[in-house]
Amino acid sequence: MQNIGIITKKSDPDAWDATKRLALWLHHRGKQVTICSETASAIGLDPEVARHKPQDDLPEGQDMVVVIGGDGTFLAGFRAIGSRDVPLLGINMGRLGFLTEVPSDAMLETMDKVLDGHYRQEERTLLNIDVLRHDKKVLSHCVMNDVVVHKGTLARMIEFQVSIDDQFVYTARADGLILATPTGSTAYALSAGGPILHPGIDALLLTPICPHTLTNRPIAVPGYGEINITFPGRHGQIIDRHQEQRDRLLTLDGQTGFTLTDGDRIQVKRSQHRLKVLHAPDRNYYAVLREKLHWGEQIGS
Amino acid sequence: MQNIGIITKKSDPDAWDATKRLALWLHHRGKQVTICSETASAIGLDPEVARHKPQDDLPEGQDMVVVIGGDGTFLAGFRAIGSRDVPLLGINMGRLGFLTEVPSDAMLETMDKVLDGHYRQEERTLLNIDVLRHDKKVLSHCVMNDVVVHKGTLARMIEFQVSIDDQFVYTARADGLILATPTGSTAYALSAGGPILHPGIDALLLTPICPHTLTNRPIAVPGYGEINITFPGRHGQIIDRHQEQRDRLLTLDGQTGFTLTDGDRIQVKRSQHRLKVLHAPDRNYYAVLREKLHWGEQIGS
Amino acid sequence: MQNIGIITKKSDPDAWDATKRLALWLHHRGKQVTICSETASAIGLDPEVARHKPQDDLPEGQDMVVVIGGDGTFLAGFRAIGSRDVPLLGINMGRLGFLTEVPSDAMLETMDKVLDGHYRQEERTLLNIDVLRHDKKVLSHCVMNDVVVHKGTLARMIEFQVSIDDQFVYTARADGLILATPTGSTAYALSAGGPILHPGIDALLLTPICPHTLTNRPIAVPGYGEINITFPGRHGQIIDRHQEQRDRLLTLDGQTGFTLTDGDRIQVKRSQHRLKVLHAPDRNYYAVLREKLHWGEQIGS
Amino acid sequence: MQNIGIITKKSDPDAWDATKRLALWLHHRGKQVTICSETASAIGLDPEVARHKPQDDLPEGQDMVVVIGGDGTFLAGFRAIGSRDVPLLGINMGRLGFLTEVPSDAMLETMDKVLDGHYRQEERTLLNIDVLRHDKKVLSHCVMNDVVVHKGTLARMIEFQVSIDDQFVYTARADGLILATPTGSTAYALSAGGPILHPGIDALLLTPICPHTLTNRPIAVPGYGEINITFPGRHGQIIDRHQEQRDRLLTLDGQTGFTLTDGDRIQVKRSQHRLKVLHAPDRNYYAVLREKLHWGEQIGS
Repeated sequence: MQNIGIITKKSDPDAWDATKRLALWLHHRGKQVTICSETASAIGLDPEVARHKPQDDLPEGQDMVVVIGGDGTFLAGFRAIGSRDVPLLGINMGRLGFLTEVPSDAMLETMDKVLDGHYRQEERTLLNIDVLRHDKKVLSHCVMNDVVVHKGTLARMIEFQVSIDDQFVYTARADGLILATPTGSTAYALSAGGPILHPGIDALLLTPICPHTLTNRPIAVPGYGEINITFPGRHGQIIDRHQEQRDRLLTLDGQTGFTLTDGDRIQVKRSQHRLKVLHAPDRNYYAVLREKLHWGEQIGS
Repeated sequence: MQNIGIITKKSDPDAWDATKRLALWLHHRGKQVTICSETASAIGLDPEVARHKPQDDLPEGQDMVVVIGGDGTFLAGFRAIGSRDVPLLGINMGRLGFLTEVPSDAMLETMDKVLDGHYRQEERTLLNIDVLRHDKKVLSHCVMNDVVVHKGTLARMIEFQVSIDDQFVYTARADGLILATPTGSTAYALSAGGPILHPGIDALLLTPICPHTLTNRPIAVPGYGEINITFPGRHGQIIDRHQEQRDRLLTLDGQTGFTLTDGDRIQVKRSQHRLKVLHAPDRNYYAVLREKLHWGEQIGS
Repeated sequence: MQNIGIITKKSDPDAWDATKRLALWLHHRGKQVTICSETASAIGLDPEVARHKPQDDLPEGQDMVVVIGGDGTFLAGFRAIGSRDVPLLGINMGRLGFLTEVPSDAMLETMDKVLDGHYRQEERTLLNIDVLRHDKKVLSHCVMNDVVVHKGTLARMIEFQVSIDDQFVYTARADGLILATPTGSTAYALSAGGPILHPGIDALLLTPICPHTLTNRPIAVPGYGEINITFPGRHGQIIDRHQEQRDRLLTLDGQTGFTLTDGDRIQVKRSQHRLKVLHAPDRNYYAVLREKLHWGEQIGS
Repeated sequence: MQNIGIITKKSDPDAWDATKRLALWLHHRGKQVTICSETASAIGLDPEVARHKPQDDLPEGQDMVVVIGGDGTFLAGFRAIGSRDVPLLGINMGRLGFLTEVPSDAMLETMDKVLDGHYRQEERTLLNIDVLRHDKKVLSHCVMNDVVVHKGTLARMIEFQVSIDDQFVYTARADGLILATPTGSTAYALSAGGPILHPGIDALLLTPICPHTLTNRPIAVPGYGEINITFPGRHGQIIDRHQEQRDRLLTLDGQTGFTLTDGDRIQVKRSQHRLKVLHAPDRNYYAVLREKLHWGEQIGS
């Protein structure tokens, strides 16, 4: 591992400090470091130590990317590498994240192990989403956590139809629908009442948001299927009756508000690419869950 | 398919009628039919038409077993074949079941197709459970739906510890814990708040029953792991303080009340055997869900 | 009861038919009927039979208002009478509603009883909501079901602070918050995971929508308190980072999308007015729940 | 307040220490103290300082009772006073309870205020439960938290019918049913998915445990009604088919395992007695909820 990129949480002096420490440490070990120019100037880093790049334009040729921040910064790191096959390592700034599991005070020690080859590389499912409009692809994206279809500001709810491959699953009315990877099952889907899916499972999770049919429970489906979402639209109730526009929004990994119209078809399937996450050898998926979800603490006793 | 067993719902005249119809129809097609002697005498079936056997002692050599009743009868069929590699076909008596999907009035037509080779065989995950006490196996069983550990009548709750392979998952206090196959996810686990897992997913579902820690959400784990449940027992609160006996019960597929004691270890892993279910070619997993869960019916509008 | 208004579901020929039947029947009994002019022209009603008025401008002096449609039409009826003390009677067009409980084929028979004094009048809690901005009231409204604060299209979530009288309740991050009357507990709040509150209970229900804190369970608080919602806003994460505008929407009884800004204070308290609902004497609140929620139908058996 | 009883958590040296400190402090202020003889001998207390009594036989004439322990000890205190009109004050041993809100290091300071009249007395709903068998009352009890009907060890589920006054509510199949006071809404009912009811609300909460009908949501009903629970029993499925005994258990406030038979009728109504709880003037119901439920801690950010 010779070329190492660093993605840093924005406007966070602690993350800046950790970035500076890591960049200098890597430089002294003869590594080529690339960081965002904005961060570099904030921390006064010599261009000899680290090449500066915009955050979202990490150059080709990185052997790994270290993310310094929280799970939101990890998502930025995932976007920066796109479909390139670069593994990510997450460092948190005091508060454990599902993906930023290394505390900053163990950063250098962990990096030392990783550079010596003492790490475990995990591969996680990514999703490809296409939006088709009049048989033309108008949006195409790769997501790590979730694809969310949500009512917009003018709608009381949305109605959508789900099918998988050629099988019709259901038509439902709800505030929205979350299609999550196992990684995304501990993000927004959990708030909406979804279960936790271990990342080792090859499955996608469909969790409706505030469904009008109370039995529309979350359902996990095999990872090999292609999920199609369309909008029958006939009963779409619009708050402003003078406005005919259907109001549905698509959100990808918590970002990118894309407006959907009546005939749109959303196609979601497992990506051929996989998210590569580096872990310290002693890392434990369940230990992160226990700490983040306060498992072990009881009420009423 | 020459040798065909029939398992019939007990004390159900409609199921008896269907059994008689099917046995005569198969006999006329030259098949060797085996049914339970109790059912045979109830419906006045000639021994030449069908060999009589006790329900739970289906002989070796069956090529398929037809279950006539509901999902409970399907479970009896599963027990009757045990670990033998015999496929099951489920006929319902008017009310659709998750596994008895063929309505009785389509029984002969479906059998006709099946005998002509027009069917789809699905394989589903089964679980092996062992109970170890002082390093000795005191119980060993294969289940189709779920393994449930539940507080008994004298306990206010139970405390249990879950680990998977060598990873500690959590210690929890609850009324109980359900370990379900995807098949079992639409049975008891659904009542306890669990999600639906499509049977094509290789995963096991852990659903706590009334957990004292509200964040102890259902979690699906990969099918390849071995789940261990033990009982730390230190804080076990006994209602009757004069009674020292811990009160924990093990229920397998809704049956077999086995009492567990302090040092017991429950080991659950995917069985090498698979449940073989025959489906009519046009069968649709999601259609059954839609009908049984009233998907599509909205409240409040 | 001499002056009787009718509010009819828009664009529904069945509701038009029922309206015509009822208007003529009332006219023959010497009653003064007022209906919406739009409906009147659609059904060709003689102005001698019924005075025509715009739907949302029901004149003073009504002794009762009959709503013909579904629960949505009932809401329109409630808006038409505003804070005037006029009782409402709900007729449904084939599909039982929580508030439109009389089937249309029992309409005349029920009206007969009601005009003879054989009815039960129920009073239900209404809510007053004010929005204060820089100590000025910028919105004031009376609602029957719920006050909803929801993230808009640009926000990933909202953060809000709830206090009741002078007691701080909590700060939460969520998609939104529903403040519902008992009447509203079977509307949107039920989809969001809230409990059912019998309308005889003097309480308000707070149900967070997709809360980030899993233990933020629905909470019912006494009807006598004043609920205050404010927006600390410090951690408000904006998807479009270049856009400083906080994006929070207020929805009242499923309508009226009002945009909230940072310093706004929402004050909700029980109205001095009560919703007056007329019931046939044999009416049963629980029978409506049973039918609408399919109570009595089991899964898995 | 001259006569003060103390109820102490069993076998807890910290609670014994606090009890001794409090008893001596009260004695020096000229109060008559009554404590349990078992505790008294454990802490070596002079009979002149405090009259000794068995825990569950607190004599008449107490002006208040101090509970030292946790919420379980508070329940013991409630049982010790029975229907007598004595207010309770709860001291916790390091871990905040819903009812034992005063930390032990603030015990004497709080007692000082209370004896000077600086306290707030809150009254909470209690429930009366009678079990009728062949028109004879076979059990009668007053509870603070909840009445629970639960399947026993031999049953797969129970079927029960609920009516309120003369209105039929529903027939349901489930593991059980919890009838809770608002006080009990934060105990077992919360684990079963129930909402939180502020103790100022006059309502009872019905929460089914693992209901087979997914729409059988928790429902809060007015406090003035009489709830009746009976057992239609026809479909009662018994695991051990040779055993005819229906297996249903009644648990009151987490104790008293009473076995119910087919024709039993359970009648629950608000008690004429009220639980009197003393609070320090600055006490805040919501602050206790926030701390016990970790409100304010988010996942996934």
